[in-house]
Amino acid sequence: MKVAIIGFGSVGKGVLKVLSERTDRTFKVVAVTDSKGAVINENGLDLALVLKQKNNDDLKRANKTSMDVVKGLDYDILVEVTPTDAKTGEPGLSYITEALKRGKHVVTSNKGPVALKYKELCGLANKSNALFLFEATVGGAMPMFNLMRMPLAGNKITSIKGIFNGTCNYILTRMASEGLPYDMVLSEAKELGIAEADPTYDVEGIDTALKLVILANAVFGMDVSLDDVDRVGISSVSLEALKLAGEADMVIKLIGEVYPNGEERVLKVSPRLVPKSHPLAVQGTLNAALIQTKLAGDIFVIGKGAGSIETASAILSDMLYIASQK
Amino acid sequence: MKVAIIGFGSVGKGVLKVLSERTDRTFKVVAVTDSKGAVINENGLDLALVLKQKNNDDLKRANKTSMDVVKGLDYDILVEVTPTDAKTGEPGLSYITEALKRGKHVVTSNKGPVALKYKELCGLANKSNALFLFEATVGGAMPMFNLMRMPLAGNKITSIKGIFNGTCNYILTRMASEGLPYDMVLSEAKELGIAEADPTYDVEGIDTALKLVILANAVFGMDVSLDDVDRVGISSVSLEALKLAGEADMVIKLIGEVYPNGEERVLKVSPRLVPKSHPLAVQGTLNAALIQTKLAGDIFVIGKGAGSIETASAILSDMLYIASQK
Repeated sequence: MKVAIIGFGSVGKGVLKVLSERTDRTFKVVAVTDSKGAVINENGLDLALVLKQKNNDDLKRANKTSMDVVKGLDYDILVEVTPTDAKTGEPGLSYITEALKRGKHVVTSNKGPVALKYKELCGLANKSNALFLFEATVGGAMPMFNLMRMPLAGNKITSIKGIFNGTCNYILTRMASEGLPYDMVLSEAKELGIAEADPTYDVEGIDTALKLVILANAVFGMDVSLDDVDRVGISSVSLEALKLAGEADMVIKLIGEVYPNGEERVLKVSPRLVPKSHPLAVQGTLNAALIQTKLAGDIFVIGKGAGSIETASAILSDMLYIASQK
Repeated sequence: MKVAIIGFGSVGKGVLKVLSERTDRTFKVVAVTDSKGAVINENGLDLALVLKQKNNDDLKRANKTSMDVVKGLDYDILVEVTPTDAKTGEPGLSYITEALKRGKHVVTSNKGPVALKYKELCGLANKSNALFLFEATVGGAMPMFNLMRMPLAGNKITSIKGIFNGTCNYILTRMASEGLPYDMVLSEAKELGIAEADPTYDVEGIDTALKLVILANAVFGMDVSLDDVDRVGISSVSLEALKLAGEADMVIKLIGEVYPNGEERVLKVSPRLVPKSHPLAVQGTLNAALIQTKLAGDIFVIGKGAGSIETASAILSDMLYIASQK
């Protein structure tokens, strides 16, 4: 299948690397684009070479924009991996919309468009019989949607809760284990590249809330947005609280939780006490989810929530699903 | 699709209950058999009624054996849920063999045939273009094969280790948390129905070893049998050892582990130290697996390893996979 990749940052590089190492011929990448232009070869790009040139900053781009590629090129799957904008969903939203209108399959790691316009995008996909997949938006390499689709097929999902932000989990884990205050650990996380220079998006729970919105709409058929999430971040978690928790064999984790509750619904991000022996009490940058089901009972899945190759792995699983449906 | 269910013990009842509660028409059960005979209706059985009659011990059976049904009836999927015999694989092995020879799909929860004759049964399935699926043989409701098939598609699995026996995990958890000796906890487990009257199969690690053999052959393409597993059970785990582990913030778990190791291979069941904060340190009757992969990194999955409905959930996911492939 012909693949066009829109976005050539960390995730885009990961996708190219992973695809370049595959020996089969399932996928042929015909275009990679970034904000400076597009690299196009309808017979298939030499991915290792493109990666090398990108890293050496001597990539020769054709004078075409990402949107030119999305609207004009012949491809089967659009892999949309531009950065998340939680407010507008752009530029990814426009790319995904145009591709779906053309009846192309779309795989994305971009939380913005899925959280903002899930219903509309699914409508477009259904209309043109295309698949719109977004495994990489929640939990990185940790399987969520693909786990619920087939392995838990036949199960009614009754609730999902978990740790969906590695940065927050790293900070809380370090505070608890080393007895260090929030500000100090946050500085350390910034130095290590685990937290962004402006960490608001992570530490105030916005990233977790976006993922909950995606789960709410995609798994539970809700029609909610970021404003519907009851949200508290971790910046107010004190060392004292973590110590008290520790004395009771508990830890404090930033937990996102979503489930229908009759006419009401629960859609909540907040620091919560979790027993140390509970499977959700994972450490460091790990993500963890508890999927409560009607037949299979409680299923926990734990994995790396971020990382270029890990996210690419989730994208690849979506691409392979599309290939398996042909 | 027409379904014939061979075996009407705890798992068979679970399958009937789960199917009876489905409102769609994907599956029609045309036969249920046990050692006393068969209940057959080519237009589809009234599953709730059959279950009620079975529970009241007034089930009217036709004068046909399970093998008569397997060989003679018109069905699409054979659900084979007779008890495991680790030495001969019978009677399930013969049923599965005959069904695959007829080109019928087979779903089983029976570890014996899969552990003993994986290669031969897959050969038969391939020859007649049938699917041979056995999600329920490892980890009960905890997705393993279906998790590796699609959600981790594109990933090379490098090793699998985990807790695959709920009885052993219950005993070790209780010994550690209550400070009670092995014999006392084993008696308690028998009273609760968590351990069998003869617990050898579980506590000596044979059940875990069988599951490792299935994983070894199905995931890593090995060609091994029970005798190839390096196996130590939990009967020699002392309270003293558990206390020492606890003092070092560790627990002792019965861990099964399998991975290729160049020309060698690791295929091992033994009590091992696990840090309390490690995701595999699950409590009670839970099962847990760590699947190490090339791209997605370490993926943990945790769930109920046994139970009538939970096992039926795994069987249903295999059945739905077959239905999705038509």
